[in-house]
Amino acid sequence: MIEMELSKIVITETSEYQVIWLREKGGQRTFPILIGIVEAAAIDRKVRDLQSPRPLTHDLLTSVITSLGAKLDRIVVCSLQNNTFYAKLVVQHNGSTVEVDSRPSDAVAIAVRLDAPIFVEEEVLQHVSSRANNEDTEV
Amino acid sequence: MIEMELSKIVITETSEYQVIWLREKGGQRTFPILIGIVEAAAIDRKVRDLQSPRPLTHDLLTSVITSLGAKLDRIVVCSLQNNTFYAKLVVQHNGSTVEVDSRPSDAVAIAVRLDAPIFVEEEVLQHVSSRANNEDTEV
Repeated sequence: MIEMELSKIVITETSEYQVIWLREKGGQRTFPILIGIVEAAAIDRKVRDLQSPRPLTHDLLTSVITSLGAKLDRIVVCSLQNNTFYAKLVVQHNGSTVEVDSRPSDAVAIAVRLDAPIFVEEEVLQHVSSRANNEDTEV
Repeated sequence: MIEMELSKIVITETSEYQVIWLREKGGQRTFPILIGIVEAAAIDRKVRDLQSPRPLTHDLLTSVITSLGAKLDRIVVCSLQNNTFYAKLVVQHNGSTVEVDSRPSDAVAIAVRLDAPIFVEEEVLQHVSSRANNEDTEV
C-alpha cells in the first residue's frame, strides 16, 4: 500500500461530478477521483477549516466513530472496477480491526476530519497514476 | 418523550428544502421538518426499498454503527431553537448509552435503515404540532 495525500479539490458547480486528486506522499504519482458535489463540499469545508453551525453528515459520521471509542486507523482505496474506485475505512475498536466498505469520497471526507492517513493499493495506483505536475499542489 | 412515525416525505426538486412529516404513533399530532434534498433522497430511497450499487453516506453511517457492535436504540428530536430542530442518536454500545448530536434529517435517515423508533420531546411536539388529516399518510 502507498500513502497518498489529498493534493487538489476541483469544484465546478455546473458539473455533475467534482474531482479530487490524490498524490503519492513524497512521490510524483497522482490520480483523480470523480465524486459528488456534497462529498466534495464536505472535504473542501474541512480542508478550509470552515465551521458549520450544525453537524453535517460527515461530521456526524466522525462523531459516531469517536463517540463509540473507535479510532480511524487509515482509509484505503483498495480497488478499481469498471472505472469505479472502491475504498474502505480501517478502524481500531476494542482491540481489533474493523473494515467498513465506503465510497472513496466519504472515506476521504472522514479521513481529513480525523487526520487519518490515506492509502491506495499499489496495483490500483499503477493502473491509474500519472506524474504530478506543479498544478497539482493546490490543497 | 412521544414516539412518532414518519408519515410523509414531500420532495419538490425545484425547492431548496424538502419536507418530512412526523406523526404521533397511534395519535393525531403531526409536524413538518424542512430538510435538504440529499437527506430527503436518502430517507425516500430506504422507505421505497431502493438499492444503491454502492454504500451512500447514510448507508455508510449505518454500517459504521453496526460494524462497531453498536445498536441504535432510538433517535430523539430533542429541541427547537430559532426555528431549527435539534436531534440526537441514542446508541447502546458496550453496555452503556452513547448520545450523538445530529440533524433530524440524518437521524431519520439512519433510523429508517436500522428500524429504530423516532421520538420527540413532549414540549417540542406541543410547540409545533397540528392535527393530522388524511393527507398525512403517504409513507
